[in-house]
Amino acid sequence: MKRNVYLKMKGLAEASTIFERAFAWGDLMGSETLAAVDALGRVTVAPVFAGISSPSYHGAAMDGFAVRADSTYGASEEHPLQLTLGENTWPVNTGQPLPDTTNAVIMIEHVRKSDDGNVEIYAAAFPWQHVRRVGEDMVAGELVLPHHHRLTATDIAALLTAGVFRLQVRSKPRVAILATGSELVDWQEAEQQVPQPGVIIESNSVLLAGLVREAGGDPVVLQRQPDELDAVRDAIDTAVDSDVAMVLVNAGASAGSKDFTAHAVEALGEVLVHGVKAMPGKPTLLGDVRGRPVVGTPGYPVSAWVCFDQFVRPALEKLQGLTPTTRVEVAATPGRKLPSKLGHEEFLRVHLGRVGEDVIALPLKRGAGTITSLVRADGILRIPAESEGRDAGDEVTVELLRSREAMEKTLVVVGSHDITLDLMADRLPRCAAGYRLSASNVGSLAGLLALKDGRSHLGGTHLLDPQSGEYNVSYLERYLPELPVRLITLAHREQGLIVRPGNPKEIRSLADLAREDLSFVNRQGGSGTRVLLDYHLEREGLDRNLIQGYEQEEFTHMAVAVQVAAGGADAGLGILAAARALGLDFIPVATERYDLCVPEALLEDPRVLAVLEVLQTEEFREAVVALGGYHVEEMGRVAWAG
Amino acid sequence: MKRNVYLKMKGLAEASTIFERAFAWGDLMGSETLAAVDALGRVTVAPVFAGISSPSYHGAAMDGFAVRADSTYGASEEHPLQLTLGENTWPVNTGQPLPDTTNAVIMIEHVRKSDDGNVEIYAAAFPWQHVRRVGEDMVAGELVLPHHHRLTATDIAALLTAGVFRLQVRSKPRVAILATGSELVDWQEAEQQVPQPGVIIESNSVLLAGLVREAGGDPVVLQRQPDELDAVRDAIDTAVDSDVAMVLVNAGASAGSKDFTAHAVEALGEVLVHGVKAMPGKPTLLGDVRGRPVVGTPGYPVSAWVCFDQFVRPALEKLQGLTPTTRVEVAATPGRKLPSKLGHEEFLRVHLGRVGEDVIALPLKRGAGTITSLVRADGILRIPAESEGRDAGDEVTVELLRSREAMEKTLVVVGSHDITLDLMADRLPRCAAGYRLSASNVGSLAGLLALKDGRSHLGGTHLLDPQSGEYNVSYLERYLPELPVRLITLAHREQGLIVRPGNPKEIRSLADLAREDLSFVNRQGGSGTRVLLDYHLEREGLDRNLIQGYEQEEFTHMAVAVQVAAGGADAGLGILAAARALGLDFIPVATERYDLCVPEALLEDPRVLAVLEVLQTEEFREAVVALGGYHVEEMGRVAWAG
Repeated sequence: MKRNVYLKMKGLAEASTIFERAFAWGDLMGSETLAAVDALGRVTVAPVFAGISSPSYHGAAMDGFAVRADSTYGASEEHPLQLTLGENTWPVNTGQPLPDTTNAVIMIEHVRKSDDGNVEIYAAAFPWQHVRRVGEDMVAGELVLPHHHRLTATDIAALLTAGVFRLQVRSKPRVAILATGSELVDWQEAEQQVPQPGVIIESNSVLLAGLVREAGGDPVVLQRQPDELDAVRDAIDTAVDSDVAMVLVNAGASAGSKDFTAHAVEALGEVLVHGVKAMPGKPTLLGDVRGRPVVGTPGYPVSAWVCFDQFVRPALEKLQGLTPTTRVEVAATPGRKLPSKLGHEEFLRVHLGRVGEDVIALPLKRGAGTITSLVRADGILRIPAESEGRDAGDEVTVELLRSREAMEKTLVVVGSHDITLDLMADRLPRCAAGYRLSASNVGSLAGLLALKDGRSHLGGTHLLDPQSGEYNVSYLERYLPELPVRLITLAHREQGLIVRPGNPKEIRSLADLAREDLSFVNRQGGSGTRVLLDYHLEREGLDRNLIQGYEQEEFTHMAVAVQVAAGGADAGLGILAAARALGLDFIPVATERYDLCVPEALLEDPRVLAVLEVLQTEEFREAVVALGGYHVEEMGRVAWAG
Repeated sequence: MKRNVYLKMKGLAEASTIFERAFAWGDLMGSETLAAVDALGRVTVAPVFAGISSPSYHGAAMDGFAVRADSTYGASEEHPLQLTLGENTWPVNTGQPLPDTTNAVIMIEHVRKSDDGNVEIYAAAFPWQHVRRVGEDMVAGELVLPHHHRLTATDIAALLTAGVFRLQVRSKPRVAILATGSELVDWQEAEQQVPQPGVIIESNSVLLAGLVREAGGDPVVLQRQPDELDAVRDAIDTAVDSDVAMVLVNAGASAGSKDFTAHAVEALGEVLVHGVKAMPGKPTLLGDVRGRPVVGTPGYPVSAWVCFDQFVRPALEKLQGLTPTTRVEVAATPGRKLPSKLGHEEFLRVHLGRVGEDVIALPLKRGAGTITSLVRADGILRIPAESEGRDAGDEVTVELLRSREAMEKTLVVVGSHDITLDLMADRLPRCAAGYRLSASNVGSLAGLLALKDGRSHLGGTHLLDPQSGEYNVSYLERYLPELPVRLITLAHREQGLIVRPGNPKEIRSLADLAREDLSFVNRQGGSGTRVLLDYHLEREGLDRNLIQGYEQEEFTHMAVAVQVAAGGADAGLGILAAARALGLDFIPVATERYDLCVPEALLEDPRVLAVLEVLQTEEFREAVVALGGYHVEEMGRVAWAG
């Protein structure tokens, strides 16, 4: 098989236009007649007019007595008027039709029944008083709902009231989803047996099916096919002839030697676009097989999401007669420099939170394979193809994935990484309705600088002063001399060497790191753990140049542990909880204080108050202790105020 | 049965607090374990942690050759390096695991296969180049999703990737819905036979069931009960013991002689609140039967909606562990004076549209029975209990029922009513994606004044100048001397006397209106039709004081027709289309020109351009002609510019 190349690569806008114009979308739309009560969420195919007026008769709007208004003129407190039941007045309850000659109702509270059973009134009625008149709500023939309207509960009640009991609505567009890939297993298999390296749990068909459902479509997941041209081609061929509006093929749309979607579509019809100038999302294929759209979606989940979002979602909306939705946009400021590749429009997933006047956008992981970046994203920051990126402080526009309100309730935490922050992120919304924590792990020092620049609400820090042996304070004096802040202790925690289970290399202390048969994985400069390492190396007179892997840097405790677990290093310095999480061994080196640094100005901010509240709960303290390696005696204590 | 009274009437906030505190909501919540793939839209019960790391192995991120980075140092264009397959390099495809000793991938595009089958490289690889490392997306033990999180398609794909295949989620809260009322028929019956006066098509259980579904609950509609205390009480009794979280009883929560909900709840448990100071929504009952909430919802649909919105929706969200949603709010200005009753918080349904800098709020019908006011509403303007209303021009806050964007795309039309505007409202969104027309029918002259005050985008007008016999122009010169506007003809239309089918009173012309045996229904002062009537009465020397019902005013052609159809009058002046819609007879009086008046400044506004575009479509012209009584030869022509 020859290697594919992207012969028909296009920019996003051009690709969309090509895709839109290639199909007779109207012919791909279906409709069906449903009972109104079964049509919640469906979309009207034609305008709907009222069949009957509502109310369909003049009815009493109050319990009381029906009268003809002009027969009551002259009645007053001083000159009550006697009315005769069955002659010029009739009792009516709310909702009952008015007797023929009447046009008003006098409330039961405003009459007195006289002894002869008749009624006495003390004020004249005006015409149509307390009457629901014919057509007050709707008149027969009136437009109730326009075309292309998505039906709500209220709409459906209105239809019944208007005597419209059945109506034509758009069918849910059926979308065939074909996963391909010889390396895949279903989740049911993976549940039975942990997959071997190289084997991947198939989740993209689940992602696409869910996205189709969220967009109002009806997914039809086909049998998965191996990476073989004939199998993929035949499956597409069959899918196109089944009763579906579109076919989505997952993976194989790239230009590698095992990517067959382009060849398959070429064999069956026409490749309209192969490759789009988007990142993630490049390996997208848009094809036409016998008048039906076939979309080759990329194999990385974020790429697949971008492809769906840009091409499939708008098509599904069009197929339902809906206006393509656009996301709410918000002006924001990058919390740090965001370089981007020229020539591709980048879809950066960002955390958003308001810090003072600005909405700060902090980038999540950028890899196309990191589905967590989508799970955690508050918005999408698009960097145009012709830009090399954005600087911290630039004004940018972000498309919101959550509500504007959620963004206003987000606490922006930038600084050192600690596993207890995950626990905090889980507890915060329970403690204070709707509040969320967005953590950006950049290390202690970078976190202090973010506070200084007004790019975060608080930061975790555990910076040891090698001179004084004290934590954090001297760094605040040096880096934040102008900003009044408070240090609130989160916990004391044990740092140590993380090594493989059973400690096969028999590592006993930091001194062993200089051994020639050992490799080390380090934390990045500016992180508290790095400072701690350097402090102890110096104290023990060890030469960092002798440590193999000293320059190999990771950004979190867990990443260090992963490196050790995966055999990329024999040891790394980190916290006990990280070692435990991956079943690794741990050789204690030091216990350190980990503080939260909060600007004084934010101490009354409800988001910060919520954090302080969580720190006081017994349940949280117990959960932290259960992680292992934490001491919570000083949790929530003010360690320093300056 | 004694008459009820509202003994426990409360303000909204107080009623909410009483309701919230009365129940152990946690005990009413259920949970179940579902396969992740079946949990779309469900809410997590506990935090979810990754079971496995993703990727779970170091894998190639590109097709190419795996190497150990330090074995490639020194390679350059000038000094290519030879690598030996199976010894220090191995071919890998994207996604495959890296061979054990390797830590980088060189892209296939960057190597040359030499003749002996080995490969030549031209640049050194750096460690982890083109490698997806273990845990790059997620590390085992990491928090994937917090508590109380509603699962999206992306979340579910992330769960599978994290090796989480089943999870505990909140059960959908089951809500029993009990409709009561002896006057009700099901829609299925109404479909067979048009209901008699006094008989009402039951739609509230459908409304409530739809609202429960929209709020994430699971409605259980019970058998309807007649207005009998025993029947209602027994049905509630049984419902409370069934497996539901709440019981909603519809109608009968008021204080009339046929309202039994309060008595029934009192007999079974405790009435917490009876009557809330809301309009619509007053006849709301909040009760506690054996620890389960029983809500008596009002019988008028808008009242039922307010009751649901204020009490039931927040409870359902709480039962799912979700933060109660609050609506997006927008600052607006009433387009006209809005008087309101002291002592009740009013929920006014409004149209919203941006005119210049202001968002104009125009009230829809205020009756609690007008479900169309909810169907058409863009927002809810709440007028506090302690206020007597709002003036035109006040700053008010409106809760949005649609998106902010929909509001920005709304064309605000204030002026004379014409049935063709209904057709326009249906065509506009089709012609220009997302654009909507919101019409407020106040008559021609009031429409011109709205334009003058910047409270609308355009107005329909058909004001005859009795001196000149010309339409509209002299009024513009008089009322809008400062505002440059353009008159664009919508149509010429026939006005005439609308009379009952077969014309039983043998009405032949306007002169007959003075007959003693006839009653008339008029249009309001300032409407073009009223001006037309007065013009013709004067021209024919007829005395308006002789016309019975001259002072009986309606605001639309359809309302006039309804009055005639329902026997409230023998004749009214209006358009042929209105007579036709209700099967009435029509005696032509005059043909008049109906124009749209548009400020020059708005001629390039996309919403106005969309209207002008619809006027040019053949389909629209044909639909207008089909209404009867319209002439479209001059449709879209500029009748005047000044």
